[in-house]
Amino acid sequence: MSTWPISYDDVLAAERRIRPYMTATPLRSYAELDDALGMHVLVKHENHAPTNAFKVRNGLSVVTAMTEADRRLGVVGATMGNYGQGLAWAGRALGVTVTICVPHGVNPDKLAAMRGLGARIVTEGSDYDDAIAVMDRLVHDEGLYPAHGVNHPAVPAGAGTIMLEILEQAKATNELLDAMVIVIGGGSQAVGAMTVLRHRGRECPVFGVQAQGAATIHDAWHDREPRIGPTPTTFAEGMATRQTYELTFDALCEGLAGFVLVSDAELAGAMRLLWQTTHNIAEPAGAGGIAALGKLGDRLRGKSVGVIISGANVDTTTLRQVLNHEM
Amino acid sequence: MSTWPISYDDVLAAERRIRPYMTATPLRSYAELDDALGMHVLVKHENHAPTNAFKVRNGLSVVTAMTEADRRLGVVGATMGNYGQGLAWAGRALGVTVTICVPHGVNPDKLAAMRGLGARIVTEGSDYDDAIAVMDRLVHDEGLYPAHGVNHPAVPAGAGTIMLEILEQAKATNELLDAMVIVIGGGSQAVGAMTVLRHRGRECPVFGVQAQGAATIHDAWHDREPRIGPTPTTFAEGMATRQTYELTFDALCEGLAGFVLVSDAELAGAMRLLWQTTHNIAEPAGAGGIAALGKLGDRLRGKSVGVIISGANVDTTTLRQVLNHEM
Repeated sequence: MSTWPISYDDVLAAERRIRPYMTATPLRSYAELDDALGMHVLVKHENHAPTNAFKVRNGLSVVTAMTEADRRLGVVGATMGNYGQGLAWAGRALGVTVTICVPHGVNPDKLAAMRGLGARIVTEGSDYDDAIAVMDRLVHDEGLYPAHGVNHPAVPAGAGTIMLEILEQAKATNELLDAMVIVIGGGSQAVGAMTVLRHRGRECPVFGVQAQGAATIHDAWHDREPRIGPTPTTFAEGMATRQTYELTFDALCEGLAGFVLVSDAELAGAMRLLWQTTHNIAEPAGAGGIAALGKLGDRLRGKSVGVIISGANVDTTTLRQVLNHEM
Repeated sequence: MSTWPISYDDVLAAERRIRPYMTATPLRSYAELDDALGMHVLVKHENHAPTNAFKVRNGLSVVTAMTEADRRLGVVGATMGNYGQGLAWAGRALGVTVTICVPHGVNPDKLAAMRGLGARIVTEGSDYDDAIAVMDRLVHDEGLYPAHGVNHPAVPAGAGTIMLEILEQAKATNELLDAMVIVIGGGSQAVGAMTVLRHRGRECPVFGVQAQGAATIHDAWHDREPRIGPTPTTFAEGMATRQTYELTFDALCEGLAGFVLVSDAELAGAMRLLWQTTHNIAEPAGAGGIAALGKLGDRLRGKSVGVIISGANVDTTTLRQVLNHEM
């Protein structure tokens, strides 16, 4: 490809902007989890971030990068929930009016949290990419500042701060890092992480994960062809996208060492395993990395592998079903 | 009373000792939780600490205060789970052999976590105070260093570091703090917090909470008479003590502004409320503060109240029952 979408300096700049508003999340390991998976797992606890999801980094990165004039206009984003919470949290912290576009049927707990953070909610359409179209309309009609959850360059830069923290924390505790396994919704986490690893010259392959019911980027990656796919059918709404994104797709093609799919049953099993061995709740997408470790066993057995628990915002009904082994 | 059991300087010293091993836990607020309770709740997230419970502070405070000679002997503690995990975590971090005495029937997830941290487990007796007797025997028979989970002065000093963080965090975000509500197991958290508040001259009443099925210290506090009570019957094993403790009882009598009891059903309801409004899991004892806010509504309505979510280590069966409304 011609150019990598963001630079290492973009990630460093995002870190400087967001650090006044959030501290680093913990990086921990658990003997029981390691035993269950046959490898040493470094768990990055984005479930402990404000709003319980890494997307607060993306929201903060966008809002702190806006000009004063843009902030007065107000900002609009589209979301399945976590990015909206992150943007709303950031808007509240910086005094910026936030409008969030969501499709019908979004996780009710995430919706309540966005409202609790003072965001205006516009509900329309049936999936994430429909909500993006509504966002574009509000940008046109109301003059709001567009904070696209994937294509805005401050987004992968914000998500890349996770990798900065992991490298620093692993170094401080003398942990090896042989590989990273990262869930792909739009690709901001993976592109951000690869930006950091490449600049540092770290030999650390990054593996992507998608859900079987939302496999468009996975399929496109294997064919090296961008596309729009079918409406997602996974219960992991945090990774339920159905298209490749301009800002991230080429970088994913160039950078990822592999890409695997996990079923909803495997995600539910990974949520139970994480709870049982670490007493942390992951939402379905947040357990994607753990679920993928089972699939990548042949390549990763005995190694030290970083996994990002991207969020904890599962709705109560789904959590109950998972714990009851009904999923 | 004649003398307060620990000094503010003891808490500061404990903070200096534990800080290299753990960062501050977050202090956050949630509009949905505030709306449900009719007050502004400052939630201190000890559920985000290593081992998912504040007791890691107590374990670290004790082990870091031991002499090199004592560390070579190894340390022994008694626990219902969280203090054992904290001590085991501290022992692993500092290279000290840890023996943990537990009664039969302890939370299986906590037991697995202690084993995962490399502790030797001795199971004997039927409740916490039985395990204390076993600990005393091992101190005598094996020459281990005794790390009593309440009476060791480094314990309330370690727990007091929570209050240092809360005051600093509330100041940084311009939050008022009108009162604290603190669960009493042995009393280390409350005594530690009151040590800090008194030294700072803060007009901030501290209310104690116990479970109806483990109300010995509550009853003794009302009568101002130490005692040994019946075997606890609450499902909140983190607060399931049955006696007053030498180091903390007089200070609780002198310092607490009030003391309320909560039922197991109220604890389960508070666990659900906390999950629903914040997406954090509290173990039953960890939800004691939230449960008590309902009882203290007349005194605290409209105020800004600090509550410590002391831990997240509920076993899976209990969590499932709580979410299923079977408790």
